Order: sequence, then C-alpha cells, then structure tokens
Amino acid sequence: MSEPRKRGGRANRVAARTNPAPVYLPTLNRAVGPIDLLGPEGVEKIHNAAMTILETTGIEFRDPIALADWKRAGADVQGERVRIGRDMLMDLISSVPESYTLHARNGDRTVDVGGKNSIFANAYGAPFVYDLDGTRRPSQLADAHNFFKLGQMSQAMHVPGILPVEPQDIPVPERHLELVHAALTLTDKPIKGSVLSETAARDTVKMAQIVFGEEFVDQNVVLTSLLNCNTPLVWDETMLESLRVYASANQPCLLSPFVLAGASTPASPQGGVALLIAESLAGMAYSQIIRKGCPMVLGVAIMGVSMKTGAPMMGSPEPGLMNLIVGQMARFYKVPWRSCTMWTGSKSPDLQAGYDTANSMWPVLLGGCNYIVHSAGFLEGALGVSYAKWVQDSAQLENFHRFFTGLQEENLDALLDDIANVGPGGHFLGTDHTREHPLHMNMLQNNDSFEQWEAEGAKIAEVVGNIEAKRILDNYVQPPMPVDQRGALDEFVAKKRAEYSA
Amino acid sequence: MSEPRKRGGRANRVAARTNPAPVYLPTLNRAVGPIDLLGPEGVEKIHNAAMTILETTGIEFRDPIALADWKRAGADVQGERVRIGRDMLMDLISSVPESYTLHARNGDRTVDVGGKNSIFANAYGAPFVYDLDGTRRPSQLADAHNFFKLGQMSQAMHVPGILPVEPQDIPVPERHLELVHAALTLTDKPIKGSVLSETAARDTVKMAQIVFGEEFVDQNVVLTSLLNCNTPLVWDETMLESLRVYASANQPCLLSPFVLAGASTPASPQGGVALLIAESLAGMAYSQIIRKGCPMVLGVAIMGVSMKTGAPMMGSPEPGLMNLIVGQMARFYKVPWRSCTMWTGSKSPDLQAGYDTANSMWPVLLGGCNYIVHSAGFLEGALGVSYAKWVQDSAQLENFHRFFTGLQEENLDALLDDIANVGPGGHFLGTDHTREHPLHMNMLQNNDSFEQWEAEGAKIAEVVGNIEAKRILDNYVQPPMPVDQRGALDEFVAKKRAEYSA
Repeated sequence: MSEPRKRGGRANRVAARTNPAPVYLPTLNRAVGPIDLLGPEGVEKIHNAAMTILETTGIEFRDPIALADWKRAGADVQGERVRIGRDMLMDLISSVPESYTLHARNGDRTVDVGGKNSIFANAYGAPFVYDLDGTRRPSQLADAHNFFKLGQMSQAMHVPGILPVEPQDIPVPERHLELVHAALTLTDKPIKGSVLSETAARDTVKMAQIVFGEEFVDQNVVLTSLLNCNTPLVWDETMLESLRVYASANQPCLLSPFVLAGASTPASPQGGVALLIAESLAGMAYSQIIRKGCPMVLGVAIMGVSMKTGAPMMGSPEPGLMNLIVGQMARFYKVPWRSCTMWTGSKSPDLQAGYDTANSMWPVLLGGCNYIVHSAGFLEGALGVSYAKWVQDSAQLENFHRFFTGLQEENLDALLDDIANVGPGGHFLGTDHTREHPLHMNMLQNNDSFEQWEAEGAKIAEVVGNIEAKRILDNYVQPPMPVDQRGALDEFVAKKRAEYSA
Repeated sequence: MSEPRKRGGRANRVAARTNPAPVYLPTLNRAVGPIDLLGPEGVEKIHNAAMTILETTGIEFRDPIALADWKRAGADVQGERVRIGRDMLMDLISSVPESYTLHARNGDRTVDVGGKNSIFANAYGAPFVYDLDGTRRPSQLADAHNFFKLGQMSQAMHVPGILPVEPQDIPVPERHLELVHAALTLTDKPIKGSVLSETAARDTVKMAQIVFGEEFVDQNVVLTSLLNCNTPLVWDETMLESLRVYASANQPCLLSPFVLAGASTPASPQGGVALLIAESLAGMAYSQIIRKGCPMVLGVAIMGVSMKTGAPMMGSPEPGLMNLIVGQMARFYKVPWRSCTMWTGSKSPDLQAGYDTANSMWPVLLGGCNYIVHSAGFLEGALGVSYAKWVQDSAQLENFHRFFTGLQEENLDALLDDIANVGPGGHFLGTDHTREHPLHMNMLQNNDSFEQWEAEGAKIAEVVGNIEAKRILDNYVQPPMPVDQRGALDEFVAKKRAEYSA
C-alpha cells in the first residue's frame, strides 16, 4: 500500500523542487548604510541652493489651475513662472509623512515606504520587448500581462507596477483600463496608477475603490504613481492634472525630475541635485496645497549623458554619486525618496548589461532609497524590456535583499566549539550551523565546472533567463479575487471602454 | 605651407583619438565609505573569538623551521600545533606598518597601500584563457605576456602582477624566471613575487635587486607577494619558506586564508571572519619574528560554496558581508588588507559575469580594501581569464575609481547663475561648467540607439572586448629600461634557466 503513496510523494517533491511556490520577501529593512557623503554644511549648501533656485529663478507650472492655486497660496506668480519663498516651501512640505504603508489587496504583500525600508518596483513604459527568443519587437498587452505574472511570481519584486511595457496594440485612451485591470487581477501585490491623463488617473482611483473600498482608499495608500518633472524647472499640465487627482484621493506620487546629468542639469553632482531637489520639492509643496498630509515621494530618475553622442549613459559614476546625495537630502527633508536603477544602454542582456545593472543599483541602495523603480528587465536605455534579463534581474534583487538585510545575530561561542571540533585541515560542510544557515543561492547563477556546463548545452545567462521566464509563465498561478469585485471591475472596464472607443 | 601640416595634424589627432596614450590613474584615495557594519562590541567579539581560536585550538605550522622559531619566541608548540597567547600575538603584529609605499621601477607608477588608499592588481594563476575568438585553451607564456601588456596599457590597473595566467608551456622550475622577467620588462608598474618555492622567492628578490638595487630593496617595498593559508588553520611549508624569504628581504606578503564560506569556514559571516582573521594574523605575527617592522597585509579570498553542488559561488551576499567585516577588523588591527573581486563562476563573459563581477567589487571597495586582487579578467571561478572580459573589467575599474574618489569641490553660486541663465525648459550641454567638467565615459559601454548598434554589427560586450584587447595589444608600447639592467636581468635568467633545466 505504501509504495504508490511514496512514489506520489516523491513526484510531488520533485515537482515542488522544479516549480517551487514563491517565497515572498518582505519590505527590505536595510541594515547596511546609508552612506552620508556630505557633511552637515554640504547638506545645508545644497538646501540653500535649491531654495535659492525656487526663490529667484522660480519654476514653471504650465497649468492654469495650478497657477491659480499657487497665487491663492501666496506664491509670486508671473505668467507661468512661480517663485516660492523658502519659509513657504518648508512649511508646505512639513506635512508630508516621513513614511507610509502601501497596501496590497492581499495583506501579506503590503509593504512600507520610507525610513530604513526599501521596496522594488517593476520597469515602466518600455515601447519594445526582447522576446523569449531574443527578438526585439513593439510591446503588446500580452507582454504587459506576462510581466505582471512574472512580477506576481517573483520573490523580491514588491510592486509589479502598472506599465511594465507600453502596450502598442491597445488604443491610447483604453490603455489605462486594460493595464489597471490586469495589474489588479493578475497580481495581488501593490500597484501604481496611470498618469496618462486626468481621466486615466480618475479611472485608476475608481478601480482601486472597487477593490479596496472607497473609505479605505481615502484613509490608506493603495496606489503610488509616477509623475515626471520636465527638467529643468517645468511641471506640465498632464502631470499636474494627475497629481491633483491622486493627491485629492490621498494617494502619493513619485515626483520625479527626469535627469540627464550634463544636459537637463549641470554636470556637477551637487549642482544637479540642487536643481532636481528644487523641482521635486516644488511639486511636493503643490500636492500639500491640494491635500495637506497626503504622502508624497521625492523622486529622481538620474542618468548621465554621453559627451560624445548625447545618448543617456546608465551605470556611470556621477549619477551614482548624485543618488547618494539625493538620499541624504531626502533624510534632511524627512520625506521618502524614489530612484531608478537596474538599467543599461546595452541592446542585449550581455556583460555590459550585467555591469550597468549592478552598478546602477548599488549607489541607490547605499543611498538608502525607499522606492526603487525599474528593478528588473530594462535594456536599451529604458526603451526595451527583456524577458531573459527580467528574471535574471529578479534573482539579483534577492541577492541585494539578502546583502542589505545585513548580519544575523550569531552565537560565536557555539561557532568556536565547531572550529575546535573541525580543527586544522577539516571542513564545515556537515556542521549543524552550516545545515541550519544555508548560504543564499541564486538558482540562475551557473557555478558548474566548464565541462559540466558544456555538456549541458553551454547556456549563457541570456538563454538561462529565457528558459526560466518560460518556466515561470507556464507555472503562473493567478491569485484569487472575490467574484463580486472581479465582476464590478470587469463591468467598469467594459463600460469605460465602450465610452472611450465611441 | 600650412595645408600639409594641418593634414598631418589632423591625421595625428585622429590617430591619437583612436589609440590614445594611456592616462594612468593614481592610487585610489577613497572618499566614499568605508562602511562600519559592526558596532565596537561587535568588533571586540570577533577579535576575542579570533584570539580564543589561536589560544585554545591553535593553528598548524607544517614546517620545522617555523615550529622552532615559534618555540624560541615563547609560543606553546605541540607537534605541529602552535597556540599563541593574545598578548604575544598583539605585541608581534604591533610592529606591522599601517601602510606602505609600493615602488614601481617607473616612479610615476608607484602606489600606496593602506589607510584610505586602494590599488587594483591583476588576476592570478588561471590555468585557462578564453582567447580573442572566445576559445578556451590552456594558458601559455604568450598569454602571460599579453596580460602584462594589457596591464601596462590599462589606466586603472596599478599592479599587472606576476602570474596573470599559469603558463603551462613552461616547465614548472623555470616559470618564475620567465614571469618575473616579463613583469619587470614588459611593464614599469609594481610587481608581485613568485611563491612557487623558496628558490623562486629568492630568485624574485634577486631580480628585483638587479632593477632597484640591493640597498633600495632592503629599505623599500618593491614587491608584494600572495601567500595562501590552507583554511582552516594550516600554514604549509611552501608558503612559509616564501614568507621567510620575503620577510627577510623586507618585502610584504598578502597573508590570505582561502575561504569557501560554509566549507572551509562556518557559513556565519562573523564566525568565518573570526577564523580567517586568526589565520592571517598568525602568519603576520610569524613574519614579525622573521623581521620586525616588515610590512605585511591581512589577506582574504572569500567566496561562498554552493549547498547544492559544492562549487564556489562568487558575487553572492555573504562573502560581501564578510568583506565589510574584514575591512573593519583590519582597521581595528591597524594593518592594510587585501581582498579578491571582479570574479564569476560563469564560463562566458555574459550577463551573469557582469553581475557577479560588479557585485563582488562593491562590498570590497565599500569595506575599504587596500590591495584588490583579480581586478580584471576572471571567469570560471578563477580558473580562466578572458581577454574580452579583461579589457571590459579594466574599463569598469576606471568607473569605480571615479565613483570612490567622490565629489569634487563645486562653486554652487556659479552653478546657480547657470541655472538662472538656462531657465525652465533649457539645457546645460553648452555651459562652460559642462565643457570643463565632462562626465566620466566608459568608451566600451555602448549607448547608441538600437538601429545604430544594429547597423554597426550588433556587437555585444564580449565582441567589443575582444576587438579592444586586440587594438591595445597592437598598440602596446614597451616601457624603456636601462640597457645594463636589461642585460643583467637577461643574464641572470639565462644562467638560472640553464641551472634548473640541467
């Protein structure tokens, strides 16, 4: 009688080993860093420079409602140019919470943003994908679905996002409906909101209310959306419309100057940071005019610009230094901050992609970044997302999570006993401690001998990534959603789709 | 008259752009980090554990001369086991200098080891190379020559080394002659010494004396050699013979336990570091019995071990954490430290190689490592050196050098004027500051558009690396050496070669 059961047990164990259920990593609570690159005077200097920019040069709000709001609030408004005194600015941002909880529809996936905490969020907005066979082609909705699924199954991807790729097969007015619906139904992790238009933002809030309830959304954070400032010194109407929708709904935005150091900002890290801080804080101050106390995130997207071709450069040193400074400034202002990382200008998930990806992440985590965007998949200067690189990057996030979690408490006396017992020339493979404290292993990292690697097909990391992406997608399990919620979501989308395509 | 000159000038300028003379980077003086992961009590705990290991378990010196030396010095010697009291140990290592100058035969290439300084040294001892066409084959002397040449031409490689690959076409007794001769003549940067045998070490010192002069070598450091401890707790005769030769000659060694965390040490970072600190300090203490005041370097080579296959794992989190702790302990003992980095288990210069390489370097630099070995080229868990990866890694070293050099002083007031002049919606590409402060550029990093990249042959980083390696080797310029020195070196090698092959 026991034989078949045993075999079934073994088969199940084999299946479980081959397709293990994801073990979700919680919010990363950093024990390594942050690095303070500047002394207190250095921080003060950049703060003063940022305040001086807003007071003297000012910043453009290319939006009549925002200009009227600023005038009412007492700022110096001339045409589209708004000049904000430092006392007014510091007073406005003082109501932004130092941290907040970002709720998922599955409470086990809820994360914390701010302080010592870091979370990883998906790539955003790529018009191209590098498919499972490596082919580059325009992104489609099916790809967005796939990257939501990969995000759902990933151990370390806290926020599968809202726009992992730009689905070019869907008409623009309907994209946000498809994407928010997919993000809410294919994952049970936290999502972002659409910022395509005021309508898109409103629809996003409405769909979040269907899932979380109106009252809950008004009192809790269930969305965090990405708004870019046009560096230097321009907030445009589309972004400000979305900002008003989300701030009114008590939902934070990542207020993010898009920085090409040396082009949109000075090449100087200190000067560049002064400028982008001014821009982000101006947006943040405006959000508090809309709804005082609404959480907001100081955002940056920093890359260098090639002095040879004008192309963006990722993984280079100056943006890394700028990230360290931005982190320090965010701590000075006591607000959460967001940055970008894990990206590369490479057109292939190759050696360069590996360097650039890692080199762009280390300074961001060392700077103490709270909300880390583009954590997996980007190639081609953020224009493409590669399936192979996505899953490889996701495995790298686990590595980073482990490293930055730091040391565990150890009983050194017990270890000294082990060392005495093992003695000169022995080994520790069999000790209880080793068995109970396995080292972190990246299952996509190949450490076999050359001969074994060759015998198994000499698979480079790109090939391994594509195989793994396919395996995960084949084994994707959709998280359950109450039938009434799902029905209401479907109905909302159907109604709006008909409206927008009319 | 001016036309031909102009054309000649232009041709020269084009040639200079295509094959620019190397601009050598000085010793990296770190302004970022180091990160202190442990509090003072944490440091004290690991110190106590290391001392307890040496006092109670002790360490084996498998060498009769060393055992006699230890007995005379007052240690507890039983068979090959030496137990060293903490007062004795701390007293012995107190004479090790906190830093030293490592002289090159060209004074412009001289570097500093210790304190805030970091230097990059070449890969070491690989039995295989991955050739310019990617083929893997046994290493030969011609490869060692090539990696010396690449090291000489590299901006950031401070020490081209002594054994970048293991030349399998040269009989073992003659290898050190060929390698030391090549390192001294093909480069004018600092070198390492051979540790193959007592004879090899003596010959190395003799050849250094030919180039630097006997008196200079006795009073200055011109070599730094790599000695591995057999973790756990064994120093063997071959290593100790070389240690005696070098210490007698006032030349430091990198006293380096070879750590497979979870196998040769406990899987615990704290426990592992306590063990390897004990081992390295025991070797260092012994060196001071040989010659008090001789510089020495606390060395580590740390990788993880796969719990699945037993293979070494590089770029994983725990060795990174261990590196941070070792750095802190080296500062506690006030001695320079050496670590290993830029390595990978990958069998190809692929995405994995890029991640692992970067991920193994960041913690080493963040820990404040002074002497950084294997800084370019390693694949296959240190069994192979790739030409393509070597030059790509070398470019990465420039990146790291720039980042860890930190911020330059800036005139923020001048930048504020620029920002006011550029204004909202403008750009900074043309400002004086941008022109005078170009961002760091890695010329091997491809940031072109997909279309341009494809039109130019869709070269992945491996291909770019191989082309660049060939270009550098084709343009290698041998540094001059006085004719009498060269003659004496040649004569010494010829005489010894005849002797050893007899």
